[in-house]
Amino acid sequence: MAARANLVVGQSGGPTAVINNSLIGVVHQALQLEQIDGVYGMLHGIRGVLDQEFVDLRRESAQTLERLCATPGSALGTVRYKVSPEDYDRLLDVFVKYDIRYFLYIGGNDSMDTVYQISQVAKRRGFDLHAIGVPKTIDNDLAQTDHSPGFGSAARFVASAIRNSGYDTESMGPDGPIKLMEIMGRNAGWLTAAAALAQDSAYDPPHLIYLPERGVSPDRIASDVEAVYRKYSYCVVAVSEGIVDVDGTPYASAAGRTMVDAFGHEVKQGVVEAVAEIILDKLGIRARFDKPSYLQRSFVELASPVDQAEAYRAGQEGVRAAVGGASGQMVSFVREPGDEYAIRYELADLSQIANQEKVIPDAYINAEGNGVTRAFIEYARPLIGGPLPDLARLAKHPIAKR
Amino acid sequence: MAARANLVVGQSGGPTAVINNSLIGVVHQALQLEQIDGVYGMLHGIRGVLDQEFVDLRRESAQTLERLCATPGSALGTVRYKVSPEDYDRLLDVFVKYDIRYFLYIGGNDSMDTVYQISQVAKRRGFDLHAIGVPKTIDNDLAQTDHSPGFGSAARFVASAIRNSGYDTESMGPDGPIKLMEIMGRNAGWLTAAAALAQDSAYDPPHLIYLPERGVSPDRIASDVEAVYRKYSYCVVAVSEGIVDVDGTPYASAAGRTMVDAFGHEVKQGVVEAVAEIILDKLGIRARFDKPSYLQRSFVELASPVDQAEAYRAGQEGVRAAVGGASGQMVSFVREPGDEYAIRYELADLSQIANQEKVIPDAYINAEGNGVTRAFIEYARPLIGGPLPDLARLAKHPIAKR
Repeated sequence: MAARANLVVGQSGGPTAVINNSLIGVVHQALQLEQIDGVYGMLHGIRGVLDQEFVDLRRESAQTLERLCATPGSALGTVRYKVSPEDYDRLLDVFVKYDIRYFLYIGGNDSMDTVYQISQVAKRRGFDLHAIGVPKTIDNDLAQTDHSPGFGSAARFVASAIRNSGYDTESMGPDGPIKLMEIMGRNAGWLTAAAALAQDSAYDPPHLIYLPERGVSPDRIASDVEAVYRKYSYCVVAVSEGIVDVDGTPYASAAGRTMVDAFGHEVKQGVVEAVAEIILDKLGIRARFDKPSYLQRSFVELASPVDQAEAYRAGQEGVRAAVGGASGQMVSFVREPGDEYAIRYELADLSQIANQEKVIPDAYINAEGNGVTRAFIEYARPLIGGPLPDLARLAKHPIAKR
Repeated sequence: MAARANLVVGQSGGPTAVINNSLIGVVHQALQLEQIDGVYGMLHGIRGVLDQEFVDLRRESAQTLERLCATPGSALGTVRYKVSPEDYDRLLDVFVKYDIRYFLYIGGNDSMDTVYQISQVAKRRGFDLHAIGVPKTIDNDLAQTDHSPGFGSAARFVASAIRNSGYDTESMGPDGPIKLMEIMGRNAGWLTAAAALAQDSAYDPPHLIYLPERGVSPDRIASDVEAVYRKYSYCVVAVSEGIVDVDGTPYASAAGRTMVDAFGHEVKQGVVEAVAEIILDKLGIRARFDKPSYLQRSFVELASPVDQAEAYRAGQEGVRAAVGGASGQMVSFVREPGDEYAIRYELADLSQIANQEKVIPDAYINAEGNGVTRAFIEYARPLIGGPLPDLARLAKHPIAKR
């Protein structure tokens, strides 16, 4: 059992719809443990430690903490700051000065590396620090965990968004445009794949899903789209921002798709714009697109209740692990076997996680590389926390022509 | 009282989150009136009449009709088809052949012109047709009505979207990017203005709102953004897709912002991309943006309950008016005076509506032309059907530095 000391918690990287749930899980748990004295928040992640910008989370009202469980953004502020080797000693100096022996950091790959490095420096200097990572990423690309908090809510938003926008497109009929949606995830296609959760039958959107894990040529995109459009009279496509050509060239930066603005500056064409241009060039069909961008990680009205609860619990588990003596580890989600969805919380070594990227395994991607398998759906379905709204179509019994 | 005859209903133009509520309002009302025999739906709007593509709405199940009240898209299919003068006589021929004497058309400006023209042709040919328009547009630009069904739900989505995305941006702190959101409405800024419903205090997003009704120069945008960014350490901007420079040139098509792709084709730069480039050029600050595009008119999970009920009622009122003997008119919303929000349904002459466009009046736009007035908020607030979720911020009591 560790000595009574102060705890500090921070948030890092891109916010999610549930990152505050993890923060409040940490705070609520910390407030219940007598081993913890001060409950500090660092402002803007690790920069708040370097700058000694700490706030007293014990003084926040219970109502504020409760309401933050349904507030997007990172309530403590976030940061994208590359910690330098010299920083680590400075960080530890601050921890020593403030008697901070519990360090909880909520973040993704880079943040997990920060936690790992700090834990190593503390060990080297003989300071009894318990540094624990709490997973967070809509990209779902953290290793050593079944999934990460933030993904389920983003997945629910993406599935709803493509379903709604797909019904809109279906209304347009046989002469209507192709619909594209650009979805976040530069190297891992988990969130793009989650668009498939919108689909009840092959007629439903999305009809095609392009992931960074599989290279796809412009010709192949065009022929895929044409086949769907002929068969169903409309076509809705989920496009990852990270898709690459068969030679690995990202669509976002292919030389042939770089444009020049009026000042002569090269401007990278957006991915979905490039795909729209390919479809127009090769098929002569207009494509329209949605780029919901930051809505994917902030749309709190569509947060998954499962994700919210798990994010909170991950924060709690992190504190318990720290006070229990762990360090250099991350709270990890292990799925229990069986038909009923259930998660068990364990700890995974950060040395196995830091700077790793978990991409979608082959078993979750269809043979054509333009969609997902049943196994992916079974993996992802429970995470969005319940079915999407029950939409309807008219039966359309024809009236005999006169 | 008109003779027993068939009714046909159609949907036209861009779908909304509640256009099916108007359809079902029409159907439910028609099923109750003995003056109405067949209840037909035309597929893909007026094209369905020209092609005699009718479906029997009496044969749809009650469950389907009920569920369509929360289904996006236009259940009968929609169309953007410019009706020619010769078409009108053909349309009337079809109505005569099918004994259709009640014509209900759910749509925007162009569709209201179609209804008007058909009513005139019927009158000229002495056919007892009751042609009634049911208003529908997320743009809220129909004349002779307080507002139009579809707007309230789109407004709720836009306000929620910019609020969520704004909280996300606020997390990034003083070195963070500017956030832009491109909002639909080419000539009228009602929906962009509705972003203001997200704001509880001047610190809250959105901080700036640019509407098509007021020209704004790139320099002015840059100085507005800089002032907000300095004051609040973040800046969230609602940008209409239809904004124009002070000389009236649309940002979407200004020569200086047209780009050339690798094939030498001219490509129009998106509006929000143009604004992002201006901010980077003039202030050296990155801007990120969301383009929720078609989500604005289809996001059924955020449909306004007030809008849903009013859309349904507008359909009912349209049928009652037609059976009551009216023609060449549109169901119009009149706001009752008083503190409590209430609407009275009247009929307005389509000759006063067809091809008109109602832009935002001066009293609703602030003196600086970069935001809205209290009067606009009071106008729009009831339409979104209740408050947005109750978000929170930490009080952030500082810990004394050591």
